[in-house]
Amino acid sequence: MTITITAFERSPDGGKGLARDTRVRWALEEAGLPYDVRLVSFRAMKEPAHLALHPFGQIPTYEEDGLVLFETGAIVFHIATHHGALLPADDHARARAITWLFAALNTVEPPILELVTARIFEGDKPWSKERIPLVEERVRDRLKQLSARLGDADWLDGDFSAGDLMMVSVLLRLRPSGILDEFPVLAAYVARGEARPAYQRAFAAQLAVNAP
Amino acid sequence: MTITITAFERSPDGGKGLARDTRVRWALEEAGLPYDVRLVSFRAMKEPAHLALHPFGQIPTYEEDGLVLFETGAIVFHIATHHGALLPADDHARARAITWLFAALNTVEPPILELVTARIFEGDKPWSKERIPLVEERVRDRLKQLSARLGDADWLDGDFSAGDLMMVSVLLRLRPSGILDEFPVLAAYVARGEARPAYQRAFAAQLAVNAP
Repeated sequence: MTITITAFERSPDGGKGLARDTRVRWALEEAGLPYDVRLVSFRAMKEPAHLALHPFGQIPTYEEDGLVLFETGAIVFHIATHHGALLPADDHARARAITWLFAALNTVEPPILELVTARIFEGDKPWSKERIPLVEERVRDRLKQLSARLGDADWLDGDFSAGDLMMVSVLLRLRPSGILDEFPVLAAYVARGEARPAYQRAFAAQLAVNAP
Repeated sequence: MTITITAFERSPDGGKGLARDTRVRWALEEAGLPYDVRLVSFRAMKEPAHLALHPFGQIPTYEEDGLVLFETGAIVFHIATHHGALLPADDHARARAITWLFAALNTVEPPILELVTARIFEGDKPWSKERIPLVEERVRDRLKQLSARLGDADWLDGDFSAGDLMMVSVLLRLRPSGILDEFPVLAAYVARGEARPAYQRAFAAQLAVNAP
């Protein structure tokens, strides 16, 4: 079986590991699966050949024996389901781990994305200075709740799972803002994720493409 | 087996079916599963008893024989996995349906949520009039791509699936803005979803709680 993913030819973050291919690389490394990477330029991402793989013209995509997937959450879930290692065997524990995967993407990431948009795409707008603190407060509201739930546990529900992989990845997007460090429980959680050998291999692999 | 979900005591939308319990009700109706509903006030949602079920203090939650889930995507996925009807049996088709479930929640819904936030929570801000068109353009960018992919198909990938249930639900949030009607392909897609008897039962059930 050959697995091929796509990634940015040049990641906008210059190799900080925040592009979404890092999440897929991490899952593949946790599962111990070798993979090929096809690099795609910004222009090629919007052309028919890539849109046939990814209707929203983004990366990453995932190809395996005639199966084509897009959407990071779905790809990580597919790897976790079909190749073990990232979801518990017990039915209930598995459903809860999947809950955290969705929570990372649909409850925690949206306000973080809003903050990224506010800083990068609206940073030059006249309202930027007054509005960014409002968006930051929405992010903090979520982080307070997440921090309270995590408490002194290592991971969100028992062993490290696909839910943790995604939550750590989502929280990493906050590091440039300094907000993550306001929540020591979450900063330590993210550090535990980054310390995993599989994460380190994934990070190194994307850096090899994107190092300045 | 008794299934219990939570919903708003009074939904902020006054019964338009946009609160997220409607998505779960719809999945349960598609699966032919009876369920109980426990209504929760805004105050109770932030209290410890509810936070134990839902760390982010929201609705819906899902309880079934000792299993507690939150996060609409995870609940719909759980219903689809354990009770049939919403995911194809073929492995590849199933993975693609799950991809659309994630795409609805992590690619299409975030800009729609931003628009809802811009209108409702920032509607009185001095930047509102100038900023809303920018947010609307981000929504339109996604809808153009989604519309191009759907084309003249009835559903996103073969038969109606959990991915369609979620995509239709996400797009419904746009109806008050008028933007959905700019995309006839998507407006017709949403109408097909709404015409399903299971959706109509779900809609009627939430309306019975929330009718003005």
